[in-house]
Order: sequence, then structure tokens, then C-alpha cells
Amino acid sequence: MSAEAGDRVKVVCRDEVFEGILIQRPEILPQNIIVVKLDSGYNIGIDKKKIKRIEVLEKYKPRKKKRTKLKINKKLPTVTVLSTGGTISSRVDYRTGGVSAEFSAEDLVDMIPELKNVANIKTKKIMNKMSEDLTPSDWVVIANEVVRALKNSDGVVVTQGTDTLHFTTAALSFMIKDLNKPVVFTAAQRSIDRGSSDAFMNLLCAVITAARFNCSEVLTCLHGTTNDDYCILIRGTKVRKMHSSRRDAFRPINEMPIAKVFPDGRIEEINHDYKKRILDKSVKPYLDEKLNEKVAMIAIYPGMDPGIIDYYVNKGFKGIVLEATALGHVPTESKKSLIPAIERAMKKEIPVVIASQTIYGHVHPYVYTNLRRLSIELKCIFVEDMLPEVAYVKLMWALGHAKKIEDVKDFMLQNIAGEITEREPLEVFLQ
Amino acid sequence: MSAEAGDRVKVVCRDEVFEGILIQRPEILPQNIIVVKLDSGYNIGIDKKKIKRIEVLEKYKPRKKKRTKLKINKKLPTVTVLSTGGTISSRVDYRTGGVSAEFSAEDLVDMIPELKNVANIKTKKIMNKMSEDLTPSDWVVIANEVVRALKNSDGVVVTQGTDTLHFTTAALSFMIKDLNKPVVFTAAQRSIDRGSSDAFMNLLCAVITAARFNCSEVLTCLHGTTNDDYCILIRGTKVRKMHSSRRDAFRPINEMPIAKVFPDGRIEEINHDYKKRILDKSVKPYLDEKLNEKVAMIAIYPGMDPGIIDYYVNKGFKGIVLEATALGHVPTESKKSLIPAIERAMKKEIPVVIASQTIYGHVHPYVYTNLRRLSIELKCIFVEDMLPEVAYVKLMWALGHAKKIEDVKDFMLQNIAGEITEREPLEVFLQ
Repeated sequence: MSAEAGDRVKVVCRDEVFEGILIQRPEILPQNIIVVKLDSGYNIGIDKKKIKRIEVLEKYKPRKKKRTKLKINKKLPTVTVLSTGGTISSRVDYRTGGVSAEFSAEDLVDMIPELKNVANIKTKKIMNKMSEDLTPSDWVVIANEVVRALKNSDGVVVTQGTDTLHFTTAALSFMIKDLNKPVVFTAAQRSIDRGSSDAFMNLLCAVITAARFNCSEVLTCLHGTTNDDYCILIRGTKVRKMHSSRRDAFRPINEMPIAKVFPDGRIEEINHDYKKRILDKSVKPYLDEKLNEKVAMIAIYPGMDPGIIDYYVNKGFKGIVLEATALGHVPTESKKSLIPAIERAMKKEIPVVIASQTIYGHVHPYVYTNLRRLSIELKCIFVEDMLPEVAYVKLMWALGHAKKIEDVKDFMLQNIAGEITEREPLEVFLQ
Repeated sequence: MSAEAGDRVKVVCRDEVFEGILIQRPEILPQNIIVVKLDSGYNIGIDKKKIKRIEVLEKYKPRKKKRTKLKINKKLPTVTVLSTGGTISSRVDYRTGGVSAEFSAEDLVDMIPELKNVANIKTKKIMNKMSEDLTPSDWVVIANEVVRALKNSDGVVVTQGTDTLHFTTAALSFMIKDLNKPVVFTAAQRSIDRGSSDAFMNLLCAVITAARFNCSEVLTCLHGTTNDDYCILIRGTKVRKMHSSRRDAFRPINEMPIAKVFPDGRIEEINHDYKKRILDKSVKPYLDEKLNEKVAMIAIYPGMDPGIIDYYVNKGFKGIVLEATALGHVPTESKKSLIPAIERAMKKEIPVVIASQTIYGHVHPYVYTNLRRLSIELKCIFVEDMLPEVAYVKLMWALGHAKKIEDVKDFMLQNIAGEITEREPLEVFLQ
């Protein structure tokens, strides 16, 4: 019986023996290598020349779909889980190499039995995209589904890929009006077929939050530490992915997390400044999704080409966010000064928004002469401590709603969804 | 006697009395306001209508230059302090509104008497620019002066504006070869005429480091905390300004700081992985400054215009750094996929370098299918945990030295100045 991908095998080599699941050889490896996923979760490549024999311990069986009918427990709240794709929806099929992303309510309860005691789960798969491929029009689709799901749920959970999660949460924070219940985004840094996956605890804590937390904001819920001890809830406009791979990569910027959520159901409030659930039944969430997508975000750095601003202006863009240095500086004196290009943008009534590349802290429109040139002469909009990513999303939204150019500044400086922290407490830096 | 800018005044209003220095009204304030710098360092604007009278307590006196001749103490090491401008060189003259940046050795010792016991100080003013206006050719000028100063010093201190300090330190880390002594960059977040200025302690600790620390790398030396307790030394390729205004804004990324430096002279090593001073007199630092400045850095975000890559390619740029999401993703599936544009860059032999916008953590060329497309099919260079800013500087340097396109990848992935950390310790995240 010869071994095929998906089979559980014992590979006997000259000096060593490996046990695990034979998987498809990734296209990057040479033909003479076989790959086995060990029980530790790691993949190992083995040179065929070193192999004495391969024993098949168990033939591949396609995953069976459980058809346990879930019973509704009327004492529990109802939570709708909307899935959009990403690592959290990935379970590799080792035979086909394909990635399944079914995520039915039965699937979820099968994976995380504790959910049965927290809420009645409804699910819907909205789309199946990796988060780096989501676009502003996807945000509108997601927001629309969230508003619909809120009607029949006590809270909504959205699962997404991690990479651009903070863009989506910012977008929904601005687009959903009269939000009366929690909308909790969660995700995973490790796929659910890995022992170290953060998907299970993140999902459980997100459902706990959606079911029980007395809050009506868009939040993220992911690991607070590298251990499986608790998740943290962060406001959707104050969150950023700060590490490429750690499970506690999502961090609050310029404010404390709203709360810790423990997998046993406890919610420990940290930051008391958030909106409570609205119990008045006449308040109904609705979508205010008008975005102008012609917005660009530009990194500022020494030696940069000022022509990049003209590129966007000439291409018909309607707004520009500069990731300026620290308090909001850009080159203004050297021969690579951005001043003439910003002036051309201003003359075409294209608002230029200034946020800080330091990520933490506020920009300031007045403290240095060249900041005053930008803010007063060139009418650049200095957006306090708003993250550049959030300023980018908000500028789309502001342009979608402004009747005249002056409205854009008003929108940008109005604190709509907690995106501006007037005074950051000392202890929030690098939390 | 009527009060003029620069005078020490008592302003008697109807309900209150203010004492401080009358300063020039910034152009942004209306004519009917006068501005007084209080002893706390804060400026207050007072409506002329509310003022009953203004008493001049002390007329403005231009600052006298001390002409104390400094004596050379042969028992002490020699440190050269090179100044380039920035907040640390700013002392406002309240009469003229001008900013002086003399920074002679006498000035320094006058400001920080402790220096006399640490080193014989030599100084040179190289240029007077705010750091947001520094360009790559300024880095070469600074590097050149550092190499020259090293000949007659036991260590060199460079003062600069904070905003782009980490770009300059990265540049010098690559450009100065056979470095045998410490080159210590310092700066200030608050100008030296403010009581809360960090300039004094930063300068003192930088001189202590240059004089005594057994290290031959390019380092930054700024406040480690918001208190005046100690500075931290960070490798010039692993440092980033992470807050717009805090005195402890400069943080180590993906590794621990090299050491703490206390104003009383103690140096406490934290990270033992650094190059020691080279005592062999035959080793002489030299400049290897060939840069190709035609490099662009591009922010990656949902909805971005892929045409931006073509813009740089068509404009004759020779290298591109993408601030990709997390492990190195860019849009590859949506109609805004970057793949076709990256392909066009590749065909013109323009290397595309991928670093992470998460700042912390590594990119990875293989773990997802679309990462393999970028790294294998499109030959994008994934630069481990190198900061995007450092990758930008290094790509200029690599292009200046590469004989053929393949050399660029070799240069980028070779750890030249500690810019790549193979495995980050768990505790370094958000240090």
C-alpha cells in the first residue's frame, strides 16, 4: 500500500524515524523531498535517498461533517458569527492542499464546545478573502451584513484575516450609526489546524463579549499576551497590528484596552470610557456608508520624491493622508520640499491630512514655524493622535459626506468614534 | 518704560497677575493678544482688553558669550561633539524670535558643568538643519565629518533633530567601515530653554558613552523613561522614534537596548551582543558612502492604487521598498492586485524589497501561497525583521555597491550592521 498525501505515516530513515501526516510537497521544494507534518505541528522535509521505508499507519479520511442539530436555549443570548476569510477560516486539507472555510454554527460548536453555554450561535459566511485583498467596497459589504445581523442578535462577531483588521474596524466604526450592541472582530495568527492556534480562545472570548458585554462599539478581541490567559478588547479606531506573527500582536494605541475577557466568561473592565448598550428599542442601527475611495496614504521620509503628491492630484484623487514625522513635519526647506506640491493640491481643493508615523502620540499644528506653514498657509488638517490608517479610512468617509471643502476639516476633527484621544494617559505608551 | 519682547514683565489683569518673559506674538494669534512665557515654561496669551498695566521687571539683555578658556585635562578622554541642528541646538532669543545654535565647547561645558570631569570636549557645527529637511547627501556629509573626528577623539557625539535620527544612524551604520570607537547620536524632544528639556541629560550621557563605553558601533542615546533617571543606548539600525513628543520616544525594535547610561557615569549593559572597541591602531575607519538615492518607500494599505509602483518605475527609480502588511503581504487577488506592477518592475531589474508595517517581527517569504508568489516568482526580497526605514537606507547603499541585480539580494540579506535579528527574544516586543 503506497502512501499518499493525507495519510498518517511512519517514515523509517537510516538513523531516525518520523511519524506524522504526509502532506503535499510545496512547489518550492525539489522533487526528491517528501514533507511530513509532525504531531508538533512543524513540517519536516525528508530526502528520499535517506528513507528506508514508509509505513502507512492510517489512510486519509476526508473530514466528516457533523450533523448534530443544535438546540436553541432560550435562556441564552443570540450571537451571529459572520466570517469573511483569513487564517481563522483556514483548515488545510492535506490530501488536496486546499483550504476549507466552512465555519457553520455546528462546526464552531464542534470546535469550541464551551460556546453552547454562552450563546445560541448563528453563522453566515459573507465572503472568503485573505485580509490583504479586502478593499473599501468589502468594508461596505461587511458593514451591511453586520447591520442586518444585529436585528436578530444580542451581539455580532466578525472573523477576518488579521493583516488589515484595524482598517475594517475603523471603517465600521464610522459607517454604522446608532449602534446599540457590541460588534466584535476577531481573527487568528495561527491556523486552526495548529496546536498553538489562537483561533479557539479568540472566538470564545469574542462570543462572550458579543453575548454579554455592556458595550455598543466596534471592538477587536484577540490575545492580550502570548499565553492563552485572556483576550483584550480594543476600540476599533484605536487598534493596530504591531507584530507580524505574535498572538498578542493587536495593541491599543494612545489609550488603554477597554477590558480583558477570560475564556471562563469573566470580563474585567480596564478603560471605562466606552458606550454602553442602548436598550431603547426605537434606536435601530443603520448604515451610513458613503465613501469616496479616491484617497491616498503617503509615507514621509528623507529624500522622498515630492512628485508623488502631484501623481495623486493629477490622477484625480480627492484626498491625501501624509504619514508625517512626529509632530507632523514634512520636508519644507530642502530642494525636496513638499510645500509646492501641497500648494498645488490645496489649489485644487484636495485636503491634505497630517498624521504621525511615530504611531503613538499627537501631531501639533503650531509649535514649530514649518508646522504653522502647513496648518495655516496650506490648510493641512492635523488630526491629533489619530492613527494614519484610521485617518485614511475616515478621510474616505468625510469626503463621502462633505458638501464643501471646509466640511472635511470639521468631520476630521470631530471625534466620531473615539478615534481622537484628547490627552493620552502616561501609561498607555507601548501597552 | 514700555515693555518689549524679551523683557521680564509683570502683567496685572483685572483678576490675575502673570509674571514671565514677554515674547513675540506668533503670527497665528490676533493683534489684540500679548504672549508671556511663564516660569513654568508654558506660554500664555492674554487679551489686551483685560490688562490693567504691564510692569517691566527686567529689561532684555542679549545672552553674553562666556569666554572661559577650557583647559585640557590629559587624564581624560577626548570627545568631539558634532552638531547638525534640530531642537537640541535651539535656544530661542525672545527679542528676535530667532533660534541660536552656537554650541561651542565652552557653551556646552557652561550648560553642563559635569562634562568637565568626563572628557575634553571639542565641537564642530557641521550644518544647521531641522531633521525633517535632512537628505541622503547630508548623511554623507555627517559621515565624512564623523570619520574625520574619529582620528583625534576617543568617541564622537552627533546631535541632530529627532524626527529622522533613526534614518541617519542607519545610514552611518552602513557607510562607516572599520569603525573602531563609539559614534553616539543624541537629540532632544524639548528645546534647552525649557525647564523640562531632555537635552542636558541626553548630551551628558552621550558624552559619557563616547568617552568610556567599550563599543564600536553607531548608537542612539536618549531618555529611557519619562524621568531624568537614565538614557538608553540603542543600535543605530534597530531604533525608531515611536512617539511624537515623549522624551523616551526612541525605542529598540526586535532587540533589547545595548545598555543604560546614568548621568553619574555608570553604564549598565543589557544586551551583550555588540562590537567592542578596536584597539589595534592599524584599523582606521573609512567612508564607503556610495548611495543610489533613486529608492522609494511605499505604504501598503487596502484600496491602494497599484499605479504608484509604475510611477516610480517610469520615473527611473532603481529600487522600491514596500511597507507590506505583517508577514509581507500585499494585495494579490483583488482587481487592485500589485502583482502586474511588481512584475513590470522585475522585468526592468528594479528590486522590490518587502519589510513589515507592523514594525515589530519578521516578514516571511514562504508560509502563504501569495508570499511564495512574491518571493519566488517575482523575486521580491524579504528582509527578515529589518525596519522599513532601515531597508530604505540599506537599499540605497546596496544599489550603490551592487555590480549586478543578484548582488542586491545578497547585500540586503547579509547582516552588515546588526540590522537583522535572527530570533527576537520574547521580551523585546514593545520595549
